[in-house]
Amino acid sequence: MKKHFAWLTAAGILTACSQGGPLQVSSPDGKLLVNFNIEEGGAPAYSASFDGEEIVATSYLGFQMEKFGALTSGFKMTAHHESEHNETWAPVWGEQDSVVNHYRQLVVEMKKKTDSVDVLLNVEFRVFDEGFAFRYVFPEQKTKQFVIDQELSRFAMTGDHTAWWIPGDYDTQEYEYTRSQLSEIAARHTAALVGNVSASAFDQWAVQTSLMMKTGDEKPLYLNIHEAALIDYPAMHLLYNDSSCTFTSALTPDGNGHMAVIDTPFSTPWRVVMVSDKATDILSTQIIYNLNESCVLDDTSWIHPTKYMGVWWEMITGKSDWSYTNAHDFDLATFDYSKARPHGRHGATTDNVKRYIDFAAANGFDQLLVEGWNVGWEDWLGREKDYVFDFVTPYPDFDIKALNDYAHSKGIKLMMHHETSGSIPNYERHMEAAYSLMNEYGYDAVKSGYVGNILPKGSYHYGQPQIRHYLDAIRRAADHKIMVNAHEAVRPTGLARTYPNLVGNESAMGTEYRNMTPGHVTILPFTRLKGGPMDFTPGIFEMDLGKFSPDKTHKRATVAGQLALYVTMYSPLQMAADLPEHYAEKMDAFQFIKDVPVDWSKSHYLDAEPGEFIVAARRAKGGDDWYVGGVTNDEARDVTVSMSFLKPGVTYQATFYTDAPDADCDSNSGAYEISKETVTSRTVSTIHMARGGGFAISIVPVK
Amino acid sequence: MKKHFAWLTAAGILTACSQGGPLQVSSPDGKLLVNFNIEEGGAPAYSASFDGEEIVATSYLGFQMEKFGALTSGFKMTAHHESEHNETWAPVWGEQDSVVNHYRQLVVEMKKKTDSVDVLLNVEFRVFDEGFAFRYVFPEQKTKQFVIDQELSRFAMTGDHTAWWIPGDYDTQEYEYTRSQLSEIAARHTAALVGNVSASAFDQWAVQTSLMMKTGDEKPLYLNIHEAALIDYPAMHLLYNDSSCTFTSALTPDGNGHMAVIDTPFSTPWRVVMVSDKATDILSTQIIYNLNESCVLDDTSWIHPTKYMGVWWEMITGKSDWSYTNAHDFDLATFDYSKARPHGRHGATTDNVKRYIDFAAANGFDQLLVEGWNVGWEDWLGREKDYVFDFVTPYPDFDIKALNDYAHSKGIKLMMHHETSGSIPNYERHMEAAYSLMNEYGYDAVKSGYVGNILPKGSYHYGQPQIRHYLDAIRRAADHKIMVNAHEAVRPTGLARTYPNLVGNESAMGTEYRNMTPGHVTILPFTRLKGGPMDFTPGIFEMDLGKFSPDKTHKRATVAGQLALYVTMYSPLQMAADLPEHYAEKMDAFQFIKDVPVDWSKSHYLDAEPGEFIVAARRAKGGDDWYVGGVTNDEARDVTVSMSFLKPGVTYQATFYTDAPDADCDSNSGAYEISKETVTSRTVSTIHMARGGGFAISIVPVK
Repeated sequence: MKKHFAWLTAAGILTACSQGGPLQVSSPDGKLLVNFNIEEGGAPAYSASFDGEEIVATSYLGFQMEKFGALTSGFKMTAHHESEHNETWAPVWGEQDSVVNHYRQLVVEMKKKTDSVDVLLNVEFRVFDEGFAFRYVFPEQKTKQFVIDQELSRFAMTGDHTAWWIPGDYDTQEYEYTRSQLSEIAARHTAALVGNVSASAFDQWAVQTSLMMKTGDEKPLYLNIHEAALIDYPAMHLLYNDSSCTFTSALTPDGNGHMAVIDTPFSTPWRVVMVSDKATDILSTQIIYNLNESCVLDDTSWIHPTKYMGVWWEMITGKSDWSYTNAHDFDLATFDYSKARPHGRHGATTDNVKRYIDFAAANGFDQLLVEGWNVGWEDWLGREKDYVFDFVTPYPDFDIKALNDYAHSKGIKLMMHHETSGSIPNYERHMEAAYSLMNEYGYDAVKSGYVGNILPKGSYHYGQPQIRHYLDAIRRAADHKIMVNAHEAVRPTGLARTYPNLVGNESAMGTEYRNMTPGHVTILPFTRLKGGPMDFTPGIFEMDLGKFSPDKTHKRATVAGQLALYVTMYSPLQMAADLPEHYAEKMDAFQFIKDVPVDWSKSHYLDAEPGEFIVAARRAKGGDDWYVGGVTNDEARDVTVSMSFLKPGVTYQATFYTDAPDADCDSNSGAYEISKETVTSRTVSTIHMARGGGFAISIVPVK
Repeated sequence: MKKHFAWLTAAGILTACSQGGPLQVSSPDGKLLVNFNIEEGGAPAYSASFDGEEIVATSYLGFQMEKFGALTSGFKMTAHHESEHNETWAPVWGEQDSVVNHYRQLVVEMKKKTDSVDVLLNVEFRVFDEGFAFRYVFPEQKTKQFVIDQELSRFAMTGDHTAWWIPGDYDTQEYEYTRSQLSEIAARHTAALVGNVSASAFDQWAVQTSLMMKTGDEKPLYLNIHEAALIDYPAMHLLYNDSSCTFTSALTPDGNGHMAVIDTPFSTPWRVVMVSDKATDILSTQIIYNLNESCVLDDTSWIHPTKYMGVWWEMITGKSDWSYTNAHDFDLATFDYSKARPHGRHGATTDNVKRYIDFAAANGFDQLLVEGWNVGWEDWLGREKDYVFDFVTPYPDFDIKALNDYAHSKGIKLMMHHETSGSIPNYERHMEAAYSLMNEYGYDAVKSGYVGNILPKGSYHYGQPQIRHYLDAIRRAADHKIMVNAHEAVRPTGLARTYPNLVGNESAMGTEYRNMTPGHVTILPFTRLKGGPMDFTPGIFEMDLGKFSPDKTHKRATVAGQLALYVTMYSPLQMAADLPEHYAEKMDAFQFIKDVPVDWSKSHYLDAEPGEFIVAARRAKGGDDWYVGGVTNDEARDVTVSMSFLKPGVTYQATFYTDAPDADCDSNSGAYEISKETVTSRTVSTIHMARGGGFAISIVPVK
């Protein structure tokens, strides 16, 4: 067997008294090398190179502990183990119907003598072709619990890279991305902050993961740091030190003054560095999912990709409201809605919901989300009110039984909505009743929300207790055969592999930010989407919001660009977010939304540059249809699409949904063209994208 | 109607510009007077007198707020309202079958102009014959939420009273009482602290409520400060200032750095001062229950007083163990108990539980508690482990179905046990499944426990989030028709009136402290029991624990004194805590435990002195039987019991269970005598109580 481990080199012979190292482990293709060594003073460190070029310089590892102080030196290696793993697994839903998980692993066991006790700490490395990851494992040992003051994982960059980053924040991920050199993070930090009801930025050098970077103009290299399998542990930020070009991990505190409390044995989440010389590899890698455990649900037959509409955009734009009455600041337990005067702007009325059901059912949607159906919305925002919702009582003008029956009679389901307003203890108290109500009426998916400061006051969205809550909500939903789409919860880290009923998250700036810059959608697939699908809520057809609502924003997008998002932003849960009446005006363009699948057997990223453009092609799961999408930032551009991904020898009918030549996200956002062409695997098309625009193509074999 | 309010005197005429006051409100019998005034600078204050003697000197009221700073001055009275209330209500269970709730009320409305906004704050006083109470009400106002840094309610004592106190502590109430002058609190504080796994004493001048005091040797007066209706708010301690003889309220922080976060409108718990010239009045007053809301449960038919035995004392004494195996520090989610080697000391085995069922059923008990039935006890104590229990998985040697079936076939139920180890988030996650399991197998009562530090780490047992949890657990139990007996939860404050499925609490030092001083049981009814019943777990017959267990303690009590506790320590939930084999040796004495009811139509406290002795007589609910109990501290004494409470003209057969003449809690604890006599309402008996002893009498009409 020894020859199988030629990729691992022990440069020195280990003896009982050596501190250990250096050790090296390579990717299966041999291009990516990770070195581990216990440096002078017993300080564990790693470095990495890709294709002969150093990508991470010597970077130290360790922790600051409440009891033991710095666990960053004084270690000795006691053992190391190497192995190679190659498996193929089939996701319940995904960008592709099978995923290869091929990596080489190095496990290093270390010991540190302290005054009181020996501390055991292992580091595990996994090296894939498209990146590497490491995590800490605290094996069973005398110390049963560690209180972590800080994790001190370093990522020493080899230069002042270009980065697309959002500010480190304990409470929100809903920021625009800033493109800057790493050295400019602090200077650009204040400008990068935008108002958010629960923003808790904490350091001008702090950024969030996944952090997309690029270096080397002539021979570009793309790097991305994220984490995988965030379980029972706070979310990690990265703190940049400009003088050493080094990131250090920065955990999210729990509000009680601790970063993390862990019981041994314990494994931290994986710290992941993705790397490639092709930007499209960063888009296509499944490394984050691969670093998560296999699915633990015995039965996944009830989990299904879902295309949905929603009684939502009309509230977001202010055309209607979630609430029922102008009364507010009351005790939900005693307030009598039956005696309250309705303000007349309630969106989730029985009649209005029926109108949506009719349209959604007539156009082949699976579900209809209804927000504002339940009592409590009068006090929901910014009030930090413990008992803000009960999740089971409908407003007087929402007939929950009749509407579900009506939806079911038309072949679709209603989608549940649980806004918690950050009052997590209250949600936990009501969760079982809330899920049971869903079972009673036939809901099988819930959009949950965590807007506003987390309760108890002083807690954060990404602290350890809250991370536990989000996963518990997913696990308990699975017990009820309920799919979860959690908004404002922590950024995903691939947990949907293990719990595929986690079909979506928000955890980034989505369409609800009506004035986002066009380039945002050209960054998200490089960053936010690496951990899991986003409920981005695309499909806005009427960009001039003032035409139908009090919101005077003109959304910076084009109709064709909105269609593209159903392909470029992979998600098993896709919304058509605009109002039925706006789709009714453009049924020819709406046809793409009706046609586009939400589950795929194969995906190809044809071309991309972060922050500039993305072109992707995907084949429908269980079908021969292909769908192509392209998006650009606020620069118009032409892209060339080679259809070589098509099956050779087959003729396809392609429908192109493109920006009109004079389309523009600001001045002419509604100008699109639809054309049909016959194409084959030899076809090469040049397609124009307007400023803030894009295109979509559906490609169906000619029978 | 005006004449009805002659008891309220406005000494000055209120005008628009006056700050308001003084106002006075009296008790229905006119003996207790409470004065309210807005003092110079707009500082609200009250004082009180009883029978012409001042009992509380001028005491200021208010708060320290995060945003507004001190809300203790600058107030103007805007209105005041007076009313008188007299109702009689019937408790679901209790010391008496009907309770009179008669008080006069004064509501003062105040306003304080601040730079930003007017703050509205009301104070409500209720004056009963046996004490008075006040609470703060934050009415609906512009400020929707207040963050309270501290409540500043003062209780200015009129002298250096004698007090029976336990140290202020955020995490435990399980202390012995210290008898001292108020001025000696700090000096005695260190000695008053005993080891406790989660003790968080915070100030050498801090004590807990209920605080029993006595003043005036020739004309003694008994005072007691407690709180009532603790809902959505942290528990209150009292901080003594020796130079001003004044207590100030001291709330329990939430661990996130706040005392309380309240939404307006909001009412604080009541701050209660009980007063009488008779110690027995302090024992009999129902003022705490009266200050709570009426029962909110529509159906209470499933709530029943319960006499039970338990697989418990054998674990407490170390004869057996809660755990199953010596393996420990494992992940409960993955540990395979079926492959673990049992250590052979597990108490809750199917065979052992059957033995208890047989004995309990044969002797007329209602239920049998079984602790240690469920997986996780290997890691339960002091580990602060989040996922410590799942509350649903039995140990391999506990056949949950067979044992419940067996118990039911014998006419008794098993009692559930949910130890949380302080891991409240974990309990909340599993609560619904845990209660559902109880419904499935026919359990209708749960003993819950909160041993150890509260999670998330840094939280306290008595902080606002935890107070919410305890009540939520009671409410959700009611949804499942489950009675709750919560140990280590916050001290009760009369909530059982509103939620009568709260049938018991521990919240003080109980029998599990095998070496407690004998006088403890002569204080508890004056203090801990004022808020609600205690699961004290009396009935120990074998005081020499070393005879049957590794515990070498000799319990300082006598058999007759243990019997007395079933009368002196009122609870609708009473345990016979000793082992079946010890009862089998003394079946004549055990007869009293079999006979004594756990629900009453009438109760008389015949004589008492805090810390010295208590004699109580109670009539069985729905019966003509009477039961008398007497306990003493570590002094032997003779008491005279006049049976004038009996129905005149009826002859009764009385069975006396008394300490033998040579009995002694240390040297001869098992020496008791049983005698039968005929008695009438004219009978007066002199009864001897040994050191640390007591007596019990059952009195049955001769048919």
